[in-house]
Amino acid sequence: MVKVGIAGATGYTGYELVRILHAHPSAEIAWLTSESFAGKKFSEVFPSPYEGELLRLSDAPLQEADVVFLALPHGASMEAVRRAYDAGALVIDLSADFRLRSAEAYEKWYGVEHTQADLLDQAVYGLPELHRDEIEGARLIANPGCYPTAAILALYPLVHSALLEPPVFVDAKSGVSGAGRKPSLKTLFVEVNENFSAYSVGYRHRHVAEMEQELGLSGPEEILFIPHLLPVSRGILETMVVRVRKRYSASQLRELYLRCYDEAPFVWVLPEGETASLAHVVGTNLCAIGITPVSEENAGVDEFIVTVAIDNLLKGASGQAVQNMNIALGLPEGAGLGVTAR
Amino acid sequence: MVKVGIAGATGYTGYELVRILHAHPSAEIAWLTSESFAGKKFSEVFPSPYEGELLRLSDAPLQEADVVFLALPHGASMEAVRRAYDAGALVIDLSADFRLRSAEAYEKWYGVEHTQADLLDQAVYGLPELHRDEIEGARLIANPGCYPTAAILALYPLVHSALLEPPVFVDAKSGVSGAGRKPSLKTLFVEVNENFSAYSVGYRHRHVAEMEQELGLSGPEEILFIPHLLPVSRGILETMVVRVRKRYSASQLRELYLRCYDEAPFVWVLPEGETASLAHVVGTNLCAIGITPVSEENAGVDEFIVTVAIDNLLKGASGQAVQNMNIALGLPEGAGLGVTAR
Amino acid sequence: MVKVGIAGATGYTGYELVRILHAHPSAEIAWLTSESFAGKKFSEVFPSPYEGELLRLSDAPLQEADVVFLALPHGASMEAVRRAYDAGALVIDLSADFRLRSAEAYEKWYGVEHTQADLLDQAVYGLPELHRDEIEGARLIANPGCYPTAAILALYPLVHSALLEPPVFVDAKSGVSGAGRKPSLKTLFVEVNENFSAYSVGYRHRHVAEMEQELGLSGPEEILFIPHLLPVSRGILETMVVRVRKRYSASQLRELYLRCYDEAPFVWVLPEGETASLAHVVGTNLCAIGITPVSEENAGVDEFIVTVAIDNLLKGASGQAVQNMNIALGLPEGAGLGVTAR
Amino acid sequence: MVKVGIAGATGYTGYELVRILHAHPSAEIAWLTSESFAGKKFSEVFPSPYEGELLRLSDAPLQEADVVFLALPHGASMEAVRRAYDAGALVIDLSADFRLRSAEAYEKWYGVEHTQADLLDQAVYGLPELHRDEIEGARLIANPGCYPTAAILALYPLVHSALLEPPVFVDAKSGVSGAGRKPSLKTLFVEVNENFSAYSVGYRHRHVAEMEQELGLSGPEEILFIPHLLPVSRGILETMVVRVRKRYSASQLRELYLRCYDEAPFVWVLPEGETASLAHVVGTNLCAIGITPVSEENAGVDEFIVTVAIDNLLKGASGQAVQNMNIALGLPEGAGLGVTAR
Repeated sequence: MVKVGIAGATGYTGYELVRILHAHPSAEIAWLTSESFAGKKFSEVFPSPYEGELLRLSDAPLQEADVVFLALPHGASMEAVRRAYDAGALVIDLSADFRLRSAEAYEKWYGVEHTQADLLDQAVYGLPELHRDEIEGARLIANPGCYPTAAILALYPLVHSALLEPPVFVDAKSGVSGAGRKPSLKTLFVEVNENFSAYSVGYRHRHVAEMEQELGLSGPEEILFIPHLLPVSRGILETMVVRVRKRYSASQLRELYLRCYDEAPFVWVLPEGETASLAHVVGTNLCAIGITPVSEENAGVDEFIVTVAIDNLLKGASGQAVQNMNIALGLPEGAGLGVTAR
Repeated sequence: MVKVGIAGATGYTGYELVRILHAHPSAEIAWLTSESFAGKKFSEVFPSPYEGELLRLSDAPLQEADVVFLALPHGASMEAVRRAYDAGALVIDLSADFRLRSAEAYEKWYGVEHTQADLLDQAVYGLPELHRDEIEGARLIANPGCYPTAAILALYPLVHSALLEPPVFVDAKSGVSGAGRKPSLKTLFVEVNENFSAYSVGYRHRHVAEMEQELGLSGPEEILFIPHLLPVSRGILETMVVRVRKRYSASQLRELYLRCYDEAPFVWVLPEGETASLAHVVGTNLCAIGITPVSEENAGVDEFIVTVAIDNLLKGASGQAVQNMNIALGLPEGAGLGVTAR
Repeated sequence: MVKVGIAGATGYTGYELVRILHAHPSAEIAWLTSESFAGKKFSEVFPSPYEGELLRLSDAPLQEADVVFLALPHGASMEAVRRAYDAGALVIDLSADFRLRSAEAYEKWYGVEHTQADLLDQAVYGLPELHRDEIEGARLIANPGCYPTAAILALYPLVHSALLEPPVFVDAKSGVSGAGRKPSLKTLFVEVNENFSAYSVGYRHRHVAEMEQELGLSGPEEILFIPHLLPVSRGILETMVVRVRKRYSASQLRELYLRCYDEAPFVWVLPEGETASLAHVVGTNLCAIGITPVSEENAGVDEFIVTVAIDNLLKGASGQAVQNMNIALGLPEGAGLGVTAR
Repeated sequence: MVKVGIAGATGYTGYELVRILHAHPSAEIAWLTSESFAGKKFSEVFPSPYEGELLRLSDAPLQEADVVFLALPHGASMEAVRRAYDAGALVIDLSADFRLRSAEAYEKWYGVEHTQADLLDQAVYGLPELHRDEIEGARLIANPGCYPTAAILALYPLVHSALLEPPVFVDAKSGVSGAGRKPSLKTLFVEVNENFSAYSVGYRHRHVAEMEQELGLSGPEEILFIPHLLPVSRGILETMVVRVRKRYSASQLRELYLRCYDEAPFVWVLPEGETASLAHVVGTNLCAIGITPVSEENAGVDEFIVTVAIDNLLKGASGQAVQNMNIALGLPEGAGLGVTAR
């Protein structure tokens, strides 16, 4: 059994990590931390029968874990990553601290100095569908952001085939768990319920940095990303207008996606004519992708609507983190992760 | 035009007061206060086109208002009530500070000393259906709590006719706006959405004190009240099992309710066979009451299910406060309050 | 008092018409019809205290109404419009039957023959902000669709100033009441709740025809409209990427909108930096518009995100229908319609 | 691998059966039926990657299944049960047709003649916590109703110890999936969302028959059950006022529950002071029970609030059905069912 430690176990992604790893056939939880609830049991913080005790991070026996998952806020994670790395564990960091390849980019987008810049070279961007080989040998995995996971998986086949013609407009909608579990006015039930709104419009959301890095795009002329807050607990749907460099029928373009992902158990290229919805993915580690031509033309078209959906806490965070662990340790990729696409 | 001041305008009940009074045919808003948002416009705090400026309470020109509404937390209201009262305004207090007739009862239930106990004698319990005459001449009106408004209106006809046989079990469910607008873990969207739970079980909710006072009941042997948190923004439904002292048919008991409330424009005794729901009342100042026998017996029964629904922010708070103002000032009872029951 | 008849009173738009007109200071309801519930009272079909009786349309005394509102399905409305028109009433048709100027266009988009094509010339497209003068003298008003009302109001100032550079991408999201009250699998609570999805992707939604007509655009190269179903009861939000013909600062473009709508009491051009949300408009007849530059440039930009929100049952249907009645009859434009933007 | 057939696979309970059994370590799906969607793939009816074909029940190869699950409407199930039974399968019937021990009781409560009354003797009431021994050898298991599962598990320890003093008042609230997937006005999103209501008040809900049978209670004098419709997709919470025959402290009564269920992996007796909520159970096969004294008395009290929660589609239907299969076949009780209480 692989021994895992989970730092930051009392946010929503921490909760999901505990839930998945507690039931994982090849893992057992060695320790949990929570700065806010240290001294309590996990079952006192969540309506869960799991009674693991919550330590302070500074008290966590790092060396007792083969794998350390960190679900800490951006900026707060990098020091802990270093300590866990030095203790010899496989480190899977769910924060943004090691997602961008350069310290400069990190500092520009996050406004925080990167104190462990020398570790950036060790970090693998943990999107298995793009970086499986590197993940296999990794010691430090930077788990992708939720919005980028969906956007990159939806656009990568076009980028890979040099078919994408920017700009791409990404109209993104996320459930409220993406905003974390810290009390705030904006995420109160009464503020969100029966409401719907865009946010960060006119600013560039930090998640765009990952999309640009992984897709080789840059700036608002190439990728325009508008996030919205959906009155649901979980799930992300992104709707994109995509222009390709030659005319395709819907089924031709779908074939291109299928080929690109034929070894990816969690990417679900939907049947022709179907668009992705939250119901396709919530509660699973799946990423559902629908490809629809803008209009019906026998001769093919060069403009498509691509819809992509993930559960922001699973494929967008904790599910993907466990998928990365499975790959890095040579376990079956889907161990503990339930339904696959095929 | 009646000039009104509103203290505590940036909670949910404050918002409703502004909304109603801004459109009221005989009122105009003189000033607004908010300790948290002083210096901002109302339209910067809520998605509203109303641009009134928010003052600190200590800066409010009390003497410019004919009527002062106070939507402040319990304990924080009593001093402000005194100042507004001394400034000569009609004072309508939406807190609990003047609802209970004795300072001792207040201190027992709220754990706070009552510093203005001499004003308690001036205060009228502002439930118009029970205390219309006193409200007409009042200078200080203690606006009832939301749960008690529903419970008292549902049980009063039986108490008034000496028909009620305790105990009464009140299974109460409230929307989340009842918990206020201050950020807290328990009222985050993700915690409430798709959830449902009882709270304060085993303790006695403070609102029971008002029910006992107005209905002449006492203690858990006579009235057992269990509140629950509903995943909706607004509305209260209470389901009660009620035993009466003789056998009645459903229509006989319904007649008794109709007679009791024949001068009450906002009490809606539902047609026979109908039970109250949130959809009957949300967005209105109505109190809907349904009376159903426990089983069908031609000879009548002595046990009934009474269901009662109100909008907690309207008949349960701000709507009722305006109804009280209308009565106290001799305006039409329903002015500014929309639909009535008849 | 103006006497009004309402045909199709038991759908969601019919319900709103009854609610508004029942409380309208200058109107009284003469008759109601419902094919599904004829013979019942309105209060038996909705949780409302209004007890009006529901007739079959064929039994409605058309001549007793000064104004006839028709909230019937597309195709089923045109004959009834003719009869009400011939009976001498001002006719306000909430269906699509008289929105498009030509019978050919109607037949192409709706697949139904137009049997009253000679009346099309009499019909005014009832968007007061564009056609106020024509509405003043109208006998037949075609009330706009919900999606087009939002899209046209958001884009009209740019079209009017010859600034809009197509294509425009409209990512639209609507609450479920837009789909009507007829039971269907797709609008069951469990199917919609916690879900979110696009629909009609790859087909062109019929509402696009109105947008094209009123904005002078044509085809998917100029306007690309993608509707989604939101898990809320009411409200539409549309997010648009808009390119303009010269560089503007945010405040300059906002000024242009303000000038365009300075006589429109229900268009609410939001303060700089604010984006529209459902909470701005639900329960009101307002149309909220937010204008945000794609990025921050002192020199101005030529690409903007425009967000626009309406309540689909009010400004998107029944509220606008009453606004049209008010204008046509010379009543105050906002009579019975509550809050205005200024 | 156990081969299973599922009749009625396109309702909500059918969907859950497919989901659980498709991932069950010791089962494989042999066939699925759906009268409404025969000829389609499962993945065309639900947003699921599982592509099993849907047959008509009359075309299902009964003999190819070791276990047949029937998720058919009441009345429609009994003939199919007979055929599957005669074909030699272990039959697990999720309808009410074999839950009541006598044909007379069935006909009284359901108003339908029981055409397979001779099979009633073979049927075991499939609540493992009460009837584990009988389930082990069963050929026909009548899977309990959702409301009774919760009520019986919450009250059984008291009945078993002869402590329960009737009457019991059960205020029950269920999510909408309990009403099935057939389109109806009452379960439309707009009707349920932001609403809350009681139903079947004054009639006796059919599920009461099971509670009476299993708990040895009878009639409205002993058990009064009031169901409500909650605006959530899944979950049941029941709040009960329970009188016991002697005084207990909270911890004493909790101990009694723990002892009663010490071999029941899915019954989760909550820590002292905690009340059950939907969040404790949704997505799991758990039944959470909270026991709280009506008031705080050191000497103990004789009145308690018992709260009990289940996921109506799992422990209230399909999860329990698989639990029953596991027990009947000698598999681990929790196989395929995820988290347990200990």
